[in-house]
Amino acid sequence: MNDRRPKLIGWGYEGDEISESERQMVMSRVGERFGGDFEIRRAPREDAIPLHAPHISLPADLAAFASSELRERLLHTYGKSFPDYARQFQGDFRNAPDIVAYARSEDDIAAVYDYAARSNVAVIPFGGGTSVCGGVEPAVGSGFNGTISLDLTRLDKVLEVDRTTRAARIQGGIRVPAMEAQLKPHGLTLRHFPQSMDLATLGGMIATRSGGHFATLYTHIDDLVESLRTVTPCGVLESRRLPGSGAGPSPDRLLIGSEGALGVITEAWMRLQARPTFRAGTAVLFDDVFAAAEAVRIISQAGLYPANVRLLDPREALNSGLGDGRQSVVVLAFENADHPVDASMGRALAITREFGGRFDEQSASSGSGHRSGAAEAWRNAFIRMPHYKKTLIEMGIITDTFETAITWERFPAFYEAILAATEAACLAATAHKGSVSCRFTHCYPDGPAPYFSFQARGRHGALGEQWREIKSRALDAVIEHGGTVTHHHAVGRDHMPWYRRQRAELFGAALQAVKDRLDPQGILNPGVLVPARG
Amino acid sequence: MNDRRPKLIGWGYEGDEISESERQMVMSRVGERFGGDFEIRRAPREDAIPLHAPHISLPADLAAFASSELRERLLHTYGKSFPDYARQFQGDFRNAPDIVAYARSEDDIAAVYDYAARSNVAVIPFGGGTSVCGGVEPAVGSGFNGTISLDLTRLDKVLEVDRTTRAARIQGGIRVPAMEAQLKPHGLTLRHFPQSMDLATLGGMIATRSGGHFATLYTHIDDLVESLRTVTPCGVLESRRLPGSGAGPSPDRLLIGSEGALGVITEAWMRLQARPTFRAGTAVLFDDVFAAAEAVRIISQAGLYPANVRLLDPREALNSGLGDGRQSVVVLAFENADHPVDASMGRALAITREFGGRFDEQSASSGSGHRSGAAEAWRNAFIRMPHYKKTLIEMGIITDTFETAITWERFPAFYEAILAATEAACLAATAHKGSVSCRFTHCYPDGPAPYFSFQARGRHGALGEQWREIKSRALDAVIEHGGTVTHHHAVGRDHMPWYRRQRAELFGAALQAVKDRLDPQGILNPGVLVPARG
Repeated sequence: MNDRRPKLIGWGYEGDEISESERQMVMSRVGERFGGDFEIRRAPREDAIPLHAPHISLPADLAAFASSELRERLLHTYGKSFPDYARQFQGDFRNAPDIVAYARSEDDIAAVYDYAARSNVAVIPFGGGTSVCGGVEPAVGSGFNGTISLDLTRLDKVLEVDRTTRAARIQGGIRVPAMEAQLKPHGLTLRHFPQSMDLATLGGMIATRSGGHFATLYTHIDDLVESLRTVTPCGVLESRRLPGSGAGPSPDRLLIGSEGALGVITEAWMRLQARPTFRAGTAVLFDDVFAAAEAVRIISQAGLYPANVRLLDPREALNSGLGDGRQSVVVLAFENADHPVDASMGRALAITREFGGRFDEQSASSGSGHRSGAAEAWRNAFIRMPHYKKTLIEMGIITDTFETAITWERFPAFYEAILAATEAACLAATAHKGSVSCRFTHCYPDGPAPYFSFQARGRHGALGEQWREIKSRALDAVIEHGGTVTHHHAVGRDHMPWYRRQRAELFGAALQAVKDRLDPQGILNPGVLVPARG
Repeated sequence: MNDRRPKLIGWGYEGDEISESERQMVMSRVGERFGGDFEIRRAPREDAIPLHAPHISLPADLAAFASSELRERLLHTYGKSFPDYARQFQGDFRNAPDIVAYARSEDDIAAVYDYAARSNVAVIPFGGGTSVCGGVEPAVGSGFNGTISLDLTRLDKVLEVDRTTRAARIQGGIRVPAMEAQLKPHGLTLRHFPQSMDLATLGGMIATRSGGHFATLYTHIDDLVESLRTVTPCGVLESRRLPGSGAGPSPDRLLIGSEGALGVITEAWMRLQARPTFRAGTAVLFDDVFAAAEAVRIISQAGLYPANVRLLDPREALNSGLGDGRQSVVVLAFENADHPVDASMGRALAITREFGGRFDEQSASSGSGHRSGAAEAWRNAFIRMPHYKKTLIEMGIITDTFETAITWERFPAFYEAILAATEAACLAATAHKGSVSCRFTHCYPDGPAPYFSFQARGRHGALGEQWREIKSRALDAVIEHGGTVTHHHAVGRDHMPWYRRQRAELFGAALQAVKDRLDPQGILNPGVLVPARG
């Protein structure tokens, strides 16, 4: 797996193409939704992409693990967001890094920092490269002589496994599938599966506060971190391995979410799970989305801790092949490695029934329910979705998602306001009616994390600008109505304007002070979390 | 309740004295343990305490809510630790604040900061005054012209309750009993009950990462915080009210545990619980403490989430009136407001049985088990313990506790090493054999939080120094063997040397940078978390 090359444009690895029947399915769905003929534009061939010469030459002390090779520079220009794809389709790689370094060790990282500091070069940490918010793009302003993308995927080992405590010391650059493969012989799993899991790295997930498999309780990767080892431009910062502590503000919580702006997470002790053996799951239909939300609220406040409790609104359900476009769906699943989960499932289903939920009693009690029927359809759609994005952009369809969180008492008005604002934005930007849908990815006792998806029929050549207009208006609404600019996609460069509106100014000042202390020359991921120096 | 005056020396409020029979019980137990006659020394009468005149005079702009009255200064000199009591008994109040200000509003806090900044005076935030680690003592070194204790207990209101989300906006100076009384009509509770709950304030608990009622899952108050409003010397820092977020490092987590060194927490939106209606609890006896720990480990890793799963080692069990001094006890309780907990209790008990645990089937299945028998005895001992400290010191008994956390695979060796080091330290410091015991206060999937108690027969007049010798050696062992200097008692001034050994140097530097930004003149709680300026 390690020698497979990630695709330059599109999701996954080279050779991973969607089937022709999937492609036809996507095109026919889009055709039904937006009507009319589509001009199909293909991504440029790699050898047809014009790329400027590097602004800086490869220094001798990095030559053993770095290069200025064209393909590496192209591969490290973008993440996986819609505007990233839109610019790739236009052959626009103007922010390509000048050098790509594949760190093999902490010494290599330190060597990159040293070079960058003495040469006034920006360093962009690059894990899985799956950022959907401009977190890995070397767009650093005019204050630097050049940029290095610091690829961490060679730090790819599980170093130590502690079965008693159920924890492992793991390198930051390992991708999720390789990590799980190395943990499996021990009967353990991190069980943190973001949609980006094929490519995502552990350190990247920690640095961006990834949201994972569990819809309740252990939602963010934050809670799975036992300790961290981070290489900053001023040296190593390592926290003590502890199950809990009350000694001052948590050091780990300062680095979790630091998005490569304070240092590179090279190792982490992670809390692991036993592989679940007891499971139950099903999907529940509701005629009213707010009744469904109430059921989810009561379940979330009941101390039941389902592994999955995802509300799909009518449009989202339809897009996932569930319901008829009027019904909402709650995908519900429980799992445990120690004891049966039927009682919890029974109680959760009883709550859904109180709010008008309907479900197949047979499937719900079979114990295999979560791998069949509606829940399985949703799961497949979830996993395949990143692969469809390229087909959509070929058709000139603008497609993106944004995710937030809001307390329960504000949810109904929030949901309606964000839908309305995003629909209005689609229309204003493209002169076509767009499609906007919502699901809950995670649920807390005090509120859900609603995840909005939108699609709009755009115009080739203007897709990036049209996208920006829609997304900006949608995020304006999120911030105005009390949400967070991101629940688990991170801030990156794209979300900075709204992040700064949401964040207390003094907290921004505190972060800047930390940045100035740990990265005094401001070389690390400039423009992320705090403004790039001019 | 609000107009009751906290005691100057000892636990609780004026008029709260332990009964003569309790006093006899304590004295007789101590007599059995340490033998011999005890010289009883009484605390000095308040009017016999010599106190220096204030170093600074009360400024006119604070006069409406501040004073330099003798009793206020005495009341705000100490927390509730053993060395605090030892110095009170000696009439040593040399670190008394010069002024005590009872802030009625954020404006009052700002006025105190302004005065302090222009007059080079240190400000010591004072909530419940229950610190057991020197967190509220105005011992600020020689760099200041004087000290103000900033009492926050007039900020004592629940401002807003949101029943749908189950959250409330609450002022930081409210004490736990008043807060619970104001939440009760709404059917809600914070359900966070540290041993200090009679006096502790919400803001103080947040600033010190208090550990509460729940032994698993929501152990620290950290997880119950939805958002914070903090007044720093540079202005207000308020976080957005959100059930979850992934937008950069958590702003709340920087202030949770900041111990009054960065600002004063004036308001918090707190996540509340419904009052539990389903309960089960019992106590399980084990012949082997490590078998008991293994049972607790498996329970903690099973996804059962007991409200209580506290292991008492043989000595601790005996001290709590349980067992015969050879048996260990696991106090086990489940509770829920939504559904019965019998299945969870049944599974947990089955696990204890696999490790040789013995319990009363009748009591365990009665549903009222947690309020009867052994569990109730433990609960009573827990609640009354703070009241006994004064009697013990009258007898010249040195008594203290320290709490830590360690991953499971290191627990057995850790436990034995800390017991041995503390026993050796008692002997070395007092020339008498001490008594050292351990319980788990909280348990995580990856390790327990062991809480050690020690008692030693000291010498009147030397109690403070003898205590310091014992505690220092015990904490040396904790740090050497990989624990944390504190799981929920905080750092304060007493734990600073070990905190600095445990903490990555660069994290200390980052905290200093934040301190310099938010409190540029270093007036807030000098010497806590970062060194006081000279």
